[in-house]
Amino acid sequence: MAKPAVVLLSGGLDSATVAAVAIRDGFDVYALSFSYGQRHSIELKSAKIVASHLGVVEHKIVDVDLRAFGGSALTDDIPVPKDRQEEDMASGIPVTYVPARNTIFLSFGLAYAEVLGSVEIFIGVNALDYSGYPDCRPEYINAYEKMARLATKAAVEGSDAITIRAPLMDLTKSEIISLGVGLGMDYSLTVSCYEASSEGEACGHCDSCILRRKGFEQSGHLDPTRYFKPVAVS
Amino acid sequence: MAKPAVVLLSGGLDSATVAAVAIRDGFDVYALSFSYGQRHSIELKSAKIVASHLGVVEHKIVDVDLRAFGGSALTDDIPVPKDRQEEDMASGIPVTYVPARNTIFLSFGLAYAEVLGSVEIFIGVNALDYSGYPDCRPEYINAYEKMARLATKAAVEGSDAITIRAPLMDLTKSEIISLGVGLGMDYSLTVSCYEASSEGEACGHCDSCILRRKGFEQSGHLDPTRYFKPVAVS
Repeated sequence: MAKPAVVLLSGGLDSATVAAVAIRDGFDVYALSFSYGQRHSIELKSAKIVASHLGVVEHKIVDVDLRAFGGSALTDDIPVPKDRQEEDMASGIPVTYVPARNTIFLSFGLAYAEVLGSVEIFIGVNALDYSGYPDCRPEYINAYEKMARLATKAAVEGSDAITIRAPLMDLTKSEIISLGVGLGMDYSLTVSCYEASSEGEACGHCDSCILRRKGFEQSGHLDPTRYFKPVAVS
Repeated sequence: MAKPAVVLLSGGLDSATVAAVAIRDGFDVYALSFSYGQRHSIELKSAKIVASHLGVVEHKIVDVDLRAFGGSALTDDIPVPKDRQEEDMASGIPVTYVPARNTIFLSFGLAYAEVLGSVEIFIGVNALDYSGYPDCRPEYINAYEKMARLATKAAVEGSDAITIRAPLMDLTKSEIISLGVGLGMDYSLTVSCYEASSEGEACGHCDSCILRRKGFEQSGHLDPTRYFKPVAVS
């Protein structure tokens, strides 16, 4: 029997690729998504479709009220930045950063893994084509893993240690797309836009749209993203 | 102006003492409680009363659905152990352990702290008179703090580092009670029992009741706990 693994699945391009990688690596995938008050809640519909497309064993969507604290353009009434240059994205932490989001999501992943008897948690963080979020850096993931190895029953009982797998960490967006396409991932099922419509159409102008479009251009693969209106290719 | 601090407040004896310590130390306390499907949800009522008693600046109660994963007698339909000897409590992890609970709670505390601009998170874990939970040990708290220092905006921007304060870590239950009484804490407002009634009456037989009763006995302070029926003192 295949080993179980928890995969954090947002419905976006990166986490869908990670789920495909976990399946390629022979894991029984237990997908975990979060309804956290995100303005682009259409991504949860995408997460369900991606989970079904990949044939995961189980897909849980957990309610997590991050709006209780606020502090982000993804959960609050703060405008999402548009048409930023990549050098601007790389400098400073944007208002789309959600305080402690990955820490909270990994912690739920840890609870799920512990109940499943799994020691593998996959997350689609990426240190190259990212948006400057502190909780996407390798040193953060390593520290999280060290903490997780002390946090659970396994730590006391001496059984297998928790591993946080971030297989996209060192890949460009273009490489991520090529990896997924090679694994048969249908990216038309994914939604990356921070302000996607309820039909999953993208704005083409937020940081996430810009990084995704550039990734498809560089990869040479056809971009299946549907936009509100045609986007001029830079 | 006093510095803000987040205090994880359950409504039990330990976290109420921690909140009193944070106030003694001059912090503006922002209390954080969780509705996580615990069978002893009366503790949230206690948390509100304790927060009010102490005059905290703000008290948030966040919904966190830990029943989505199960795996604990505190959230599932698993019997809570009764009348265990202390040596039995000290060996192995009991079914009242909730997978990754402190990791999840601290992570919400981290989000709250980051939004408040606070770098102090207080938690009432204790390594002596505890119930064998892995996420109450000092090595776990230290690893969490290291992770938290890499997780937030402050980590990237070079501002003050997050500190996880666990002022009860090395105290016995009796010492915790004496500390709180010295700070004017009214423990009749707190509920420790895993199966407390909706009126806050305790069973007197679960691990939490046994540790609390022994603590009051050893401290020499009057035990204000109300029980369903009188409990024979051992």
